Amino acid sequence: MQYEFSEVINGLKPSFIREILKLTVKPEIISFAGGLPDPTLFPHQTIKDASNAMFDRQDNGIFQYTTTEGHLGLRQWIAKRFSDAHDVQVDADQVMIVSGSQQALDLFGKIYINPQDGVVMEAPTYLGAIQAFRMYQPEFKEVELLEDGIDTDQFRTTMTQSDSKFFYGIPNFQNPTGLTYSADKRQQVADILQDSGKLMLEDDPYGALLFDDPNTQGMTTRPIYALAPEHVVYMGSFSKVFVPGFRLGWVIAPKPVLAKMVIAKQAADLHTNSFVQELLYQYVTTNDLDAHIDVIRQTYSAKKSCMVEAIHTYLGDEVQMAPANGGMFIWVRVPGVAVMDLLKYAIDNNVAYVPGEAFSLSGEYKDYMRLNFTSLDDEQIIEGIKRLKAALDAYRVAQ
Amino acid sequence: MQYEFSEVINGLKPSFIREILKLTVKPEIISFAGGLPDPTLFPHQTIKDASNAMFDRQDNGIFQYTTTEGHLGLRQWIAKRFSDAHDVQVDADQVMIVSGSQQALDLFGKIYINPQDGVVMEAPTYLGAIQAFRMYQPEFKEVELLEDGIDTDQFRTTMTQSDSKFFYGIPNFQNPTGLTYSADKRQQVADILQDSGKLMLEDDPYGALLFDDPNTQGMTTRPIYALAPEHVVYMGSFSKVFVPGFRLGWVIAPKPVLAKMVIAKQAADLHTNSFVQELLYQYVTTNDLDAHIDVIRQTYSAKKSCMVEAIHTYLGDEVQMAPANGGMFIWVRVPGVAVMDLLKYAIDNNVAYVPGEAFSLSGEYKDYMRLNFTSLDDEQIIEGIKRLKAALDAYRVAQ
Repeated sequence: MQYEFSEVINGLKPSFIREILKLTVKPEIISFAGGLPDPTLFPHQTIKDASNAMFDRQDNGIFQYTTTEGHLGLRQWIAKRFSDAHDVQVDADQVMIVSGSQQALDLFGKIYINPQDGVVMEAPTYLGAIQAFRMYQPEFKEVELLEDGIDTDQFRTTMTQSDSKFFYGIPNFQNPTGLTYSADKRQQVADILQDSGKLMLEDDPYGALLFDDPNTQGMTTRPIYALAPEHVVYMGSFSKVFVPGFRLGWVIAPKPVLAKMVIAKQAADLHTNSFVQELLYQYVTTNDLDAHIDVIRQTYSAKKSCMVEAIHTYLGDEVQMAPANGGMFIWVRVPGVAVMDLLKYAIDNNVAYVPGEAFSLSGEYKDYMRLNFTSLDDEQIIEGIKRLKAALDAYRVAQ
Repeated sequence: MQYEFSEVINGLKPSFIREILKLTVKPEIISFAGGLPDPTLFPHQTIKDASNAMFDRQDNGIFQYTTTEGHLGLRQWIAKRFSDAHDVQVDADQVMIVSGSQQALDLFGKIYINPQDGVVMEAPTYLGAIQAFRMYQPEFKEVELLEDGIDTDQFRTTMTQSDSKFFYGIPNFQNPTGLTYSADKRQQVADILQDSGKLMLEDDPYGALLFDDPNTQGMTTRPIYALAPEHVVYMGSFSKVFVPGFRLGWVIAPKPVLAKMVIAKQAADLHTNSFVQELLYQYVTTNDLDAHIDVIRQTYSAKKSCMVEAIHTYLGDEVQMAPANGGMFIWVRVPGVAVMDLLKYAIDNNVAYVPGEAFSLSGEYKDYMRLNFTSLDDEQIIEGIKRLKAALDAYRVAQ
């Protein structure tokens, strides 16, 4: 039997990250390659309690089909929380619950990209966004991400080109770089969106994970949405601040955009799991999510410090690190080293990471790697960095 | 701000069914329009027990990211159950869990439809499939659904046309008609698939809901997949035999097809909710799902009989009914009546249904309506049919 697949799918490959993750599930490997939250922080008992409280209401509606837009109470809670936190007015009818924020990338691609449309991306950028958008056959355009945010000169030029349709960016603790836009850069981006009349898809899974340390005084994580609400579709997620397994994210969008995304979502999966929406609503209305997020921030901040110190100790001036003031990743440069080739030596030494070029549309960042620090304990982090040093030594000997 | 939506989404409208459902949530309306399972049958206490057993294992992995393919134990359980039930060999690596079987329609459309490809559909057919496939801009071709299954002469001619890419069908208790393919028609379809070298997407949400009555003796619900496994992608669902709110469905596919669907799903939502996959696995391995399905079958069989009797009593020879030997719907013809126009009178009389033309690609079935009997009790069914009679009388007076 000859299967006649679509041209779109024939042009794609499986996720490099996910293929690597399959190789690194062996228990002897210390993997910095994933992007997993620390599972010991999942609020197991509190979720169980919320679950039983939900069951005890004896409402079989928790198992039934629901609306495409999602649980109204949860959408109201999200709208109020976002409005209060960021000093902007968002209504529940601008909010749709999605099946993880990855789904928002797919739905937005579906409603906004015609083949050959220009899609402006940070360089480097999130691999999952590349994968989602590629299904709609855009022309990608890259704008370099600097330490204080995107290169706004290049951004203005690119966005004002007539075939540039929208900008996809992650202003807070970006994946893979951990970098964060300055307040000034946020305003410049908002201005350029307004001047060019174009839209931004603002992806913010990590914004709540600002580390509480002297470096982060005065940093802002305020969404660009708050500066140009008509020009931004904002994506939020419960995966990094609660649990990822529920696959619960949301979008906040101008109403005409949300209406189209609702149509696309109806066709894609009718609606997001109503049972876990109800369970999450039970949790957030009877627990202090912010107190839980504080625990995550403190834990991740300590893990990051541990990794930075281990890198200083064992890799020293062989590497350069981008500042990571929140989120889940450190972006490490090993000048002159072909980090993809180094990976073989790393796996021989039972350590793994994602090579930088996986995050590049043009095969750049060949001497960078992304290290995740959230899913390991301190001992594993230190041992993993030692192994990375051994791998690097072996690599250098072989050159 | 002028939003530049994609051509695909600009060509679409919201689901007619879902828009109607919004109009008919008023408590005074008896709605035959939905497709909701009977919520009183959801096994509330058993799910609560399974949930607590799951929590009590103290495994935080239930909240973590998982693989795109889904929970391995659940996939093995599905493969074995399907193999045993239908005398065919399916392995777990041919099974992928999806976010409701609606998602399988979207994913299959993405990997198999190029713009202008011919997609062969039953006439009438499931509205959600039309919506999902339309995102990929096919040319639809209709083949008439007869009382014993699709018109196989017309089907053979259509499938052997060079631009026909695949066939989408619902052989068991079809939505909207309730009709079921005979054993002979199943074999003919399998033969035509093999002769033409084409693929079928076999949608089977209702196959387990065969009514236990004298009419159904000797009926088969065996999937066409079992007759031509290389030529069929089979879609299953837990929505109608367990609960819809979990959004859990699955596909069984030839391995090359499944591999492409995995890539599409990675990009679409990474993976399906791992928490409810674990919970369902806990449920099916510690409870007798078939015993639960027996209760559903008996309940729905009684509700169907109630509706058929009420129709005979109150509408008599004003209408014709297609045989419904399982599933959730009765397909009713009101010869000569414009059923879309009748809807206004129906809503005035506080009863609702879906007009037949909603399920047609070519605007046919104008004197048909789809009536759902699963989500109402006997008293509501009888009262609703009385109201339908009153609406019909008012309609006829106004002509």
